[in-house]
Amino acid sequence: MKWTKKHLLGLKDLDRNELNMILDTAEGLKEVSTRSIKKVPALQGRTVALLFFEPSTRTSMSFQLAAQRLSADLIQFNKSGSSLSKGETLIDTASNIEAMGVDMVVVRHSCPGVPQILAKHLNCAIVNAGDGCHEHPTQGLLDIFTIREKLGTLEGVKVAIVGDIRHSRVARSNIFGLLKLGAKVTVVGPPTLIPKSIAKMGVEISYNLDETIKKVDVVNCLRIQMERQGRSNFPSLREYALLFGMNRDRLKKASKNLVVMHPGPINRGVEMTAEVADSKNSVILQQVSNGLACRMAVFYLLNGSRIDV
Amino acid sequence: MKWTKKHLLGLKDLDRNELNMILDTAEGLKEVSTRSIKKVPALQGRTVALLFFEPSTRTSMSFQLAAQRLSADLIQFNKSGSSLSKGETLIDTASNIEAMGVDMVVVRHSCPGVPQILAKHLNCAIVNAGDGCHEHPTQGLLDIFTIREKLGTLEGVKVAIVGDIRHSRVARSNIFGLLKLGAKVTVVGPPTLIPKSIAKMGVEISYNLDETIKKVDVVNCLRIQMERQGRSNFPSLREYALLFGMNRDRLKKASKNLVVMHPGPINRGVEMTAEVADSKNSVILQQVSNGLACRMAVFYLLNGSRIDV
Amino acid sequence: MKWTKKHLLGLKDLDRNELNMILDTAEGLKEVSTRSIKKVPALQGRTVALLFFEPSTRTSMSFQLAAQRLSADLIQFNKSGSSLSKGETLIDTASNIEAMGVDMVVVRHSCPGVPQILAKHLNCAIVNAGDGCHEHPTQGLLDIFTIREKLGTLEGVKVAIVGDIRHSRVARSNIFGLLKLGAKVTVVGPPTLIPKSIAKMGVEISYNLDETIKKVDVVNCLRIQMERQGRSNFPSLREYALLFGMNRDRLKKASKNLVVMHPGPINRGVEMTAEVADSKNSVILQQVSNGLACRMAVFYLLNGSRIDV
Repeated sequence: MKWTKKHLLGLKDLDRNELNMILDTAEGLKEVSTRSIKKVPALQGRTVALLFFEPSTRTSMSFQLAAQRLSADLIQFNKSGSSLSKGETLIDTASNIEAMGVDMVVVRHSCPGVPQILAKHLNCAIVNAGDGCHEHPTQGLLDIFTIREKLGTLEGVKVAIVGDIRHSRVARSNIFGLLKLGAKVTVVGPPTLIPKSIAKMGVEISYNLDETIKKVDVVNCLRIQMERQGRSNFPSLREYALLFGMNRDRLKKASKNLVVMHPGPINRGVEMTAEVADSKNSVILQQVSNGLACRMAVFYLLNGSRIDV
Repeated sequence: MKWTKKHLLGLKDLDRNELNMILDTAEGLKEVSTRSIKKVPALQGRTVALLFFEPSTRTSMSFQLAAQRLSADLIQFNKSGSSLSKGETLIDTASNIEAMGVDMVVVRHSCPGVPQILAKHLNCAIVNAGDGCHEHPTQGLLDIFTIREKLGTLEGVKVAIVGDIRHSRVARSNIFGLLKLGAKVTVVGPPTLIPKSIAKMGVEISYNLDETIKKVDVVNCLRIQMERQGRSNFPSLREYALLFGMNRDRLKKASKNLVVMHPGPINRGVEMTAEVADSKNSVILQQVSNGLACRMAVFYLLNGSRIDV
Repeated sequence: MKWTKKHLLGLKDLDRNELNMILDTAEGLKEVSTRSIKKVPALQGRTVALLFFEPSTRTSMSFQLAAQRLSADLIQFNKSGSSLSKGETLIDTASNIEAMGVDMVVVRHSCPGVPQILAKHLNCAIVNAGDGCHEHPTQGLLDIFTIREKLGTLEGVKVAIVGDIRHSRVARSNIFGLLKLGAKVTVVGPPTLIPKSIAKMGVEISYNLDETIKKVDVVNCLRIQMERQGRSNFPSLREYALLFGMNRDRLKKASKNLVVMHPGPINRGVEMTAEVADSKNSVILQQVSNGLACRMAVFYLLNGSRIDV
């Protein structure tokens, strides 16, 4: 099988084989970061541009390291102090970056669809690093990779995604990918944060974490993103933690081998207690390591497809 | 011929041969950015420092990429969070950077003459990336390169530069370079934005774009830089666009092969309509690509001159 | 002798042999920055992360260049726009960075002890780039290196450290290192800025620079850090300059070969006059060059110790 997609805009666009191909490639590349010399020459002389219009630590650093470990050149677009503050359109900014011979553009933006727009207008490969409430495909990939690594398969695996489903691009990318690979997904949260229409994606809805936690193999606790909601959709953080936070009691109710995930950064005491975050069930730091491997895999495959074209 | 200048402070300082030498070198280096592996080892182990005291996207990225594609190490001086906010003098900051073994300093500053001051005090090569209303030599070079590439020569080529001539370092660098290479320059704009004294540089003055556009081969539309003028020197953007913006009507009046240029970022609807910016006459994105090549050429030549010294 | 320490947290932790080993290594590596190709492959494929929670120009750039000249990959953590503004704990942020396969973390923080905390929780090597009023070991090393380079030895050398001793991590690191290598240290300043307890470290206290300057081989003038003191501990900058600033008169009273140092950035006219800063006695720019060499030495040794472990 050969990789043929030019961009990575969302997991919705990928089929089962493509998803597996990324996961397999990531598995191979993960080893690079454990070497003494963490570098392969795969993307030497290629240029990756990072266009982050939203603040980010881990995602930005992860993409930067992924590019470096493949020996790519890296250029960062700094939103503040940029031409956008001078009234330039997004397309003009991006066209300019392309005109400098950039091979891949990694874009994060608060507006859903920005990566699609860039893909339509630019010749270089576009990687979506999160677009509004739409998709965050590399986060979805790293979550799925981590589950596969831990449980050996996705087929029949029961995954609960807990939290603000309504506003979560992480949830959406996870759902698209997990379902295609045969997992069963239940979304859990207060009714205000779960749109009824989400059932059409093929997931079950639960408003009761205490019930759901007993039946699943994996719980993925979404971050409560105060900075992204206009107003709070639940009475208080304390109530949220009581009803939907992972804590010692819920861990006891669950399978002994429950896999506990979080995309980070954690609000300790809100989405989960410190005890759970640091427990042997938690794979949160493995997710971070795997994110790097998945992003390397995405760069590697997209670059390969360009060479062949 | 051998390159002998240590710095690139302005096009005023270069003679015809030196200008042609940069353009020829850029022509050779332009090909590097079209390769699969966009990198040559010319500046390996050299360090380029970027000192940008004014916001910039394209110029900063272009210099960064130019350094990377020549395999130089790159260090960026971040104005905010810097020693200058601690009361250090510019010379002390720059001397410190030099003491770390930096080979070339690329400087942008709102005060005209800052690159000259650094050249006087530091041993490393200084590249002016824009100093107040004085010069922006690499922008001049890329504009001239693009005209030469498009029309085959500068000799006898008629160029209109439109806009805020009074405050434009881009206009000044263009004028110095174009005249030395045999082009004829007309500056066009409202009387408030064209100092009478500019005629002494050897250019013609026009207040009527509709007349001038009929007679020129190239129109270079300067950006209206709201952020640089204390107060507006024309009644409104709408009036500016009506009198001095490039639009469909003016394009029709002009030669079929009129070359339309803009240093970017474009205010679409002000300096030119979207239709003109995206027309086949527009070479705006080629300017961006050529900017990278010209900056590579400048680094390449300045570095070579240092080796020989 | 073999290097065995995993981290560089402070000069208090190092013995005489370890200090000399860093200084000797720095002496060897200093030559790299004078070459045409300023680069050795020692740290190729290693990743250095810079976590600066306080503003910095020279220290940050010095560490960046040190990493580049050893061919390491470099990643910068940007405090603003980071996960810390999203409520993540410092340990979680650092653990995430470690999970991406970072080999060394260089940290600067306003809280004393932060590097120690990271060293306890992370597996990678930690380099303290300044923690509150505690230590700034690489600044201490570069000061000591510069004295040794200038005078041939530290044994019996008399060093005055002038200024805000109470709040100075630079003073503390200097004192720890200088005393271990056989130098004699006098701290000089107004009584409000010298804690009585400092005598326990093994230094003499002086409130009179005019007396002390006659007896010393080296004067290290600390920066008056307005940004770090809650309120001023002396009546005025002018009075400080009169009593404790280095000027022409005090230079005349001192040994002809007095070595004048300053960690930078200088407040000219406060800690010393411009005349003294630019005099032949001043080694301030050598300190900057030596800082790069010392930081390369620290990276080099810490990396080596990791390989052997």
